[in-house]
Amino acid sequence: MSKLIYVLNGPNLNLLGKRQPEIYGSETLADVAAKMQVKADKLGIQLEFFQSNHEGALVDKIHEARENAAGIIINPAAYSHTSVAILDALNTFENPVVEVHISNIHKREAFRHHSYVSSRAEGVIAGLGTLGYVLALDYFAN
Amino acid sequence: MSKLIYVLNGPNLNLLGKRQPEIYGSETLADVAAKMQVKADKLGIQLEFFQSNHEGALVDKIHEARENAAGIIINPAAYSHTSVAILDALNTFENPVVEVHISNIHKREAFRHHSYVSSRAEGVIAGLGTLGYVLALDYFAN
Amino acid sequence: MSKLIYVLNGPNLNLLGKRQPEIYGSETLADVAAKMQVKADKLGIQLEFFQSNHEGALVDKIHEARENAAGIIINPAAYSHTSVAILDALNTFENPVVEVHISNIHKREAFRHHSYVSSRAEGVIAGLGTLGYVLALDYFAN
Amino acid sequence: MSKLIYVLNGPNLNLLGKRQPEIYGSETLADVAAKMQVKADKLGIQLEFFQSNHEGALVDKIHEARENAAGIIINPAAYSHTSVAILDALNTFENPVVEVHISNIHKREAFRHHSYVSSRAEGVIAGLGTLGYVLALDYFAN
Amino acid sequence: MSKLIYVLNGPNLNLLGKRQPEIYGSETLADVAAKMQVKADKLGIQLEFFQSNHEGALVDKIHEARENAAGIIINPAAYSHTSVAILDALNTFENPVVEVHISNIHKREAFRHHSYVSSRAEGVIAGLGTLGYVLALDYFAN
Amino acid sequence: MSKLIYVLNGPNLNLLGKRQPEIYGSETLADVAAKMQVKADKLGIQLEFFQSNHEGALVDKIHEARENAAGIIINPAAYSHTSVAILDALNTFENPVVEVHISNIHKREAFRHHSYVSSRAEGVIAGLGTLGYVLALDYFAN
Amino acid sequence: MSKLIYVLNGPNLNLLGKRQPEIYGSETLADVAAKMQVKADKLGIQLEFFQSNHEGALVDKIHEARENAAGIIINPAAYSHTSVAILDALNTFENPVVEVHISNIHKREAFRHHSYVSSRAEGVIAGLGTLGYVLALDYFAN
Amino acid sequence: MSKLIYVLNGPNLNLLGKRQPEIYGSETLADVAAKMQVKADKLGIQLEFFQSNHEGALVDKIHEARENAAGIIINPAAYSHTSVAILDALNTFENPVVEVHISNIHKREAFRHHSYVSSRAEGVIAGLGTLGYVLALDYFAN
Amino acid sequence: MSKLIYVLNGPNLNLLGKRQPEIYGSETLADVAAKMQVKADKLGIQLEFFQSNHEGALVDKIHEARENAAGIIINPAAYSHTSVAILDALNTFENPVVEVHISNIHKREAFRHHSYVSSRAEGVIAGLGTLGYVLALDYFAN
Amino acid sequence: MSKLIYVLNGPNLNLLGKRQPEIYGSETLADVAAKMQVKADKLGIQLEFFQSNHEGALVDKIHEARENAAGIIINPAAYSHTSVAILDALNTFENPVVEVHISNIHKREAFRHHSYVSSRAEGVIAGLGTLGYVLALDYFAN
Amino acid sequence: MSKLIYVLNGPNLNLLGKRQPEIYGSETLADVAAKMQVKADKLGIQLEFFQSNHEGALVDKIHEARENAAGIIINPAAYSHTSVAILDALNTFENPVVEVHISNIHKREAFRHHSYVSSRAEGVIAGLGTLGYVLALDYFAN
Amino acid sequence: MSKLIYVLNGPNLNLLGKRQPEIYGSETLADVAAKMQVKADKLGIQLEFFQSNHEGALVDKIHEARENAAGIIINPAAYSHTSVAILDALNTFENPVVEVHISNIHKREAFRHHSYVSSRAEGVIAGLGTLGYVLALDYFAN
Repeated sequence: MSKLIYVLNGPNLNLLGKRQPEIYGSETLADVAAKMQVKADKLGIQLEFFQSNHEGALVDKIHEARENAAGIIINPAAYSHTSVAILDALNTFENPVVEVHISNIHKREAFRHHSYVSSRAEGVIAGLGTLGYVLALDYFAN
Repeated sequence: MSKLIYVLNGPNLNLLGKRQPEIYGSETLADVAAKMQVKADKLGIQLEFFQSNHEGALVDKIHEARENAAGIIINPAAYSHTSVAILDALNTFENPVVEVHISNIHKREAFRHHSYVSSRAEGVIAGLGTLGYVLALDYFAN
Repeated sequence: MSKLIYVLNGPNLNLLGKRQPEIYGSETLADVAAKMQVKADKLGIQLEFFQSNHEGALVDKIHEARENAAGIIINPAAYSHTSVAILDALNTFENPVVEVHISNIHKREAFRHHSYVSSRAEGVIAGLGTLGYVLALDYFAN
Repeated sequence: MSKLIYVLNGPNLNLLGKRQPEIYGSETLADVAAKMQVKADKLGIQLEFFQSNHEGALVDKIHEARENAAGIIINPAAYSHTSVAILDALNTFENPVVEVHISNIHKREAFRHHSYVSSRAEGVIAGLGTLGYVLALDYFAN
Repeated sequence: MSKLIYVLNGPNLNLLGKRQPEIYGSETLADVAAKMQVKADKLGIQLEFFQSNHEGALVDKIHEARENAAGIIINPAAYSHTSVAILDALNTFENPVVEVHISNIHKREAFRHHSYVSSRAEGVIAGLGTLGYVLALDYFAN
Repeated sequence: MSKLIYVLNGPNLNLLGKRQPEIYGSETLADVAAKMQVKADKLGIQLEFFQSNHEGALVDKIHEARENAAGIIINPAAYSHTSVAILDALNTFENPVVEVHISNIHKREAFRHHSYVSSRAEGVIAGLGTLGYVLALDYFAN
Repeated sequence: MSKLIYVLNGPNLNLLGKRQPEIYGSETLADVAAKMQVKADKLGIQLEFFQSNHEGALVDKIHEARENAAGIIINPAAYSHTSVAILDALNTFENPVVEVHISNIHKREAFRHHSYVSSRAEGVIAGLGTLGYVLALDYFAN
Repeated sequence: MSKLIYVLNGPNLNLLGKRQPEIYGSETLADVAAKMQVKADKLGIQLEFFQSNHEGALVDKIHEARENAAGIIINPAAYSHTSVAILDALNTFENPVVEVHISNIHKREAFRHHSYVSSRAEGVIAGLGTLGYVLALDYFAN
Repeated sequence: MSKLIYVLNGPNLNLLGKRQPEIYGSETLADVAAKMQVKADKLGIQLEFFQSNHEGALVDKIHEARENAAGIIINPAAYSHTSVAILDALNTFENPVVEVHISNIHKREAFRHHSYVSSRAEGVIAGLGTLGYVLALDYFAN
Repeated sequence: MSKLIYVLNGPNLNLLGKRQPEIYGSETLADVAAKMQVKADKLGIQLEFFQSNHEGALVDKIHEARENAAGIIINPAAYSHTSVAILDALNTFENPVVEVHISNIHKREAFRHHSYVSSRAEGVIAGLGTLGYVLALDYFAN
Repeated sequence: MSKLIYVLNGPNLNLLGKRQPEIYGSETLADVAAKMQVKADKLGIQLEFFQSNHEGALVDKIHEARENAAGIIINPAAYSHTSVAILDALNTFENPVVEVHISNIHKREAFRHHSYVSSRAEGVIAGLGTLGYVLALDYFAN
Repeated sequence: MSKLIYVLNGPNLNLLGKRQPEIYGSETLADVAAKMQVKADKLGIQLEFFQSNHEGALVDKIHEARENAAGIIINPAAYSHTSVAILDALNTFENPVVEVHISNIHKREAFRHHSYVSSRAEGVIAGLGTLGYVLALDYFAN
């Protein structure tokens, strides 16, 4: 039976490809989902893809993942830097977590250098563009 | 006529008793509600019990409490450390507030040592497990 | 054709005029909307007025503004100090933003002195009471 | 056989009820002891009640408690914020410790927000007035 | 009888319109004075307009304002960030003070984010260009 | 009837005149007491002179002063920088307090620049040698 | 021949007795000068009394003092906290300096707790009202 | 013609697989090189693999890379946190840089949370074990 | 005639060997005294061995040492981190001081990394267990 | 036609050679001016030499330099560390600025390590004595 | 068979006895080695003595020690304060480490108060001169 | 006999003129050496010119300078900010040291504002380009 991986996306990522292309590129979130699906199919991984601008909705979704997911790939976006609630939700999750950032947060404003999620995630991929999402799947395949 | 006390619970507390029992014990939130009800009945106190993972929903509920509650018992969980919105909502509430934490937040990561709510609450009970909720009722009985 | 300006209000502002009048005065948010409408009519500006206690709902509304607004007047209230998500949403918006605070946040607790939104807004008006909202319209008229 | 609980009080608490009633109320420390005794009798708990203005005397008393106490209820008062010696003494004690503060230390000067004892205590009760002492007994009854 | 408002300008503002137009625009200080006069005439306000590069001269002028001004509009420029003397002078003044900054100081170097004057002023307008001066007059008209 | 003033001296002051004369001069504490007595006699002030190396003993003595002293002159020495207990004891005292330091603590190590007692005392005299004690009496004569 | 002592007063002290009497009392600076003169006459001390709101003018006056003064009594007021120039000027002066503050700066805003001048002065008197000036003369008489 | 990628390894990585397997796993650096070679062959990438415990030797090697490499994959290990020299060397390199950490540095001691190299690298992969090196190759293939 | 060395022990060391053996080992303070005596006899050194939980008592004992000791070996325990009074007492002592810690304080909580005594002592030995006391004697023999 | 260079000197430099020769040497400011003139004549540079103890006067002079100077050599002395006004004035100047300090400010008190002017100047020369002024001329000759 | 102990010395220790004798004394490193050899012979310990100014060379040497040493005595000198690489190398070493400093680093500049090595070493000896090296041998003999 | 001056260059300076010309200009290090030689010949100074990317090699070279150099001109580049070892090596050198930076380090990233070497050097020249090296020679000629 195939593994189920949740792919969670935080605030403003619904605009991916539509805003600030110099930072985030021109692919949309749907493009990312499609690209991941291709790779997931190869690896025999099933995906649940989700985006919300609401911190609480992301917490709810992580709780759902507790029931059936073998792993979480999360790009918490702005909530990386401010959400202890998401950190705590991930702390209730018992399988691996990989954090992805499209841009290299270490090259941006100082308040973006710290992520609460990083202290919980098994690994972090930042700055490799949307490729980071795809590479995170490789981690779960291994 | 009996006093009405709101008992508000922040993010991830819906999983109480289901996650990290070494920190939070094995009682569920429903168990806590039941235990409080027994005590409240004895003290002639009426309870409105609420949990949400959404900061905004907690703010909305506090606004509701303004209309009819004699007090609030709140375990803001992760939002203790990050939510000025909940602090401001409590600032609009004119009756006493007691803050409860199941674990002793002062023994955990540094970012959990500060609670915005503590600067508004009449009192704080931390680390006494779910008994803290019950003891908070005693405060309102006095 | 008239300009459309979004007027966005953060958490607890639904209680304006009903709480802490020594800080916020006695006008309600509806009063503010009415007062702005009078001025907007004079200036040939169309207003979309919105309030929410939910950070995610404010992010959603800013995304909506991207489609059709010539500017945003925002009083982020408590989220000024904690929301990178709202900052990021405003970063996706390409027209001017004016931040308004009814009270002078620099005279209050230290954690209210910093606003993420101020680093994005064209301008900031603080402490002039609800008049600040009206003056912000003048900025868009110029 | 009944449990023995030590109730330890730090500097200036001998003046309780005689000074700053707006912060500490009008009950004396003897009143507190009497109130606790009533509750302790009901719970089958034996009390050893002690106050000192001397850090060293409090350390000595904690050492004494090691020999025969099932728990310690301590209001370290000013020494909360400055005494590593009392923390270390409590570290040598193997049963539970509950820290009590009559006022809510989180609403007072910044230097009162940190307590060395909190990093050792099982739980902390602050701001519930002298009721806090009585509620701490409930913890030991459970 | 008309109200008298002092309009005080700090160091380097004598060069307004002559330097760094990308930050400060191309209007001169005389242009600002003229624009304010037009508005003041409408509002029945009398203006005393002053600029100095000398901290002490600004202190002296504020003392003069104590005698006869109904309010002060001040752009302390560089002295915002360094002058306790001007803050103290304003503390001796008993009528309202509005602080104006032409640029949005929150978008510039970190040392420009703090203004001593903001902790005294009734309100602050920043980043709205020279329009800020004119809007400050509206405050005094209300 | 003459006023009674307590003159309290903290740790190591019993060695005054016997140690580090380059910092503290060559007068002994007995010399200081004698010098103060001469002045007190002139001013019709009665003195209670006390020195201890024990923080708790100083707290006890301040409590005694509450009963009968019109003022306290205190050189808390090392306890200036570390004792919240002495601050709290002085907070229970209702008459004026003058803090004296023989050396200028602002010219010494950084940890000597802050004194808890200074936030309570009416006034502070530092660096004027043992003359500071005598001048403090003038304050109580006025 | 009598000693000459310079008495220097910083910004806003020209308003002494006319502003904020709850902090600074009701004596004017002229009253202080008169009171000092009476004492100086007794001690055989000659006074040069000066006030300025200009940092540079105070520096100039200290340079003048280098030529003929046996000591300086200085109340740098707001410049205490911000002026390295006055500190450096005092560093060129070879006789004793006593710093006087009418209010107890340690009880006020945090930025008033540090004085550059204190690191140079022989002694500091704060919070004893205008009596501090008179007591400073005693230092020079000894 | 195939791309040449430099793979640079910092101090103590020569012991990979031989020390602290609970942090770094049991593969040796030779195993990593072999695993990368397999992938590189597939992607048509040529590898130059290097390890040194000497900061200067790593700087020298980066200079060599300037001549002929299309990219650098670097695990600076301990030098991540302390070496401005390596950062400056990478600043002289004009092609992309990917930083790899075998462990998740954000879960370890605070001094490991900051990497000078991260402010220069296009992307960062941390905590995915030695798989991180292989995934970095994917970045250069894209 | 033999040298006299004072061996001073701070709070909680009376419990040595009875508490937390994983940090402090199983030897009692009497064992340490005996072990030191054996070595001291060989070196022709006379010992005065003292322990107190009272800061003031340690200060008193250091004053006694001023009269007749050739050196002090001190384990200030918790007072290392909080006592300026003990530092000041040691500053009045004119012969060498060696500070001993049984555990390596640099591996424990951050507040244990700083010792006031270290800024006065000739040398410091930490983490070598009770052997540290014995080695300190070697220093005085040399 | 020869270049005109302004040489500006901040507070207390009028006493150069007359105060603290161990820090500043024994040359007077007139000596420096003369030495610079000799060099300037060789390089075909014209000098405008100025000193003031008044921050505002230095700002005024920099404004004058905007009209006709090819460069500014400035020793801001104490104002280096405190004057944003001088920084802003230099920001209005469009030609190069060289900052000179006679002493090495990095070897003195911590508050002298930061200079606002350094963030604007093309270059900084510190600690080379009055030779620094002369070398700064070389910069303008190149 | 005798134990082998590595004695490692960091940068500038090759100049021991030749530089700054007021801090480091007049013995050379060769003298230290000789003195240690005498003691080691008595204790049946074999020594490998090494000094380098190169961080990488010290790392290499620690790796060598992993193969055959029962312990390391290390004076990391300047690298104490800056080298994570040496800390990491010592983390790969499985036997005890004793850190030695000839001078008392806690009495010197603030940046010398922290040593990365101290967080790894079993014990630390500082300020006892070169005797510290010899005493460290005692630790390994026990 | 001519003076010998060592000119030492830190990491990455071997690439001078080949990298980032917008910061460092287009002259190579050989060009700098040549330019210095011309000036040195005029001044009768002999030069020893050295560059290394290895911290330890720079330490070794400074030790060599102790034997025969009358002064050191050093551009420590990246090691300015991180090397206590180089600072300590310079502390063993008894003749003057001048620190040179080609760019103005105070205008770059915050971590470049502090240089360990500056606390030892007689003087510092920054931001004057490669001319700084030549001007440093003038210092040794005087």
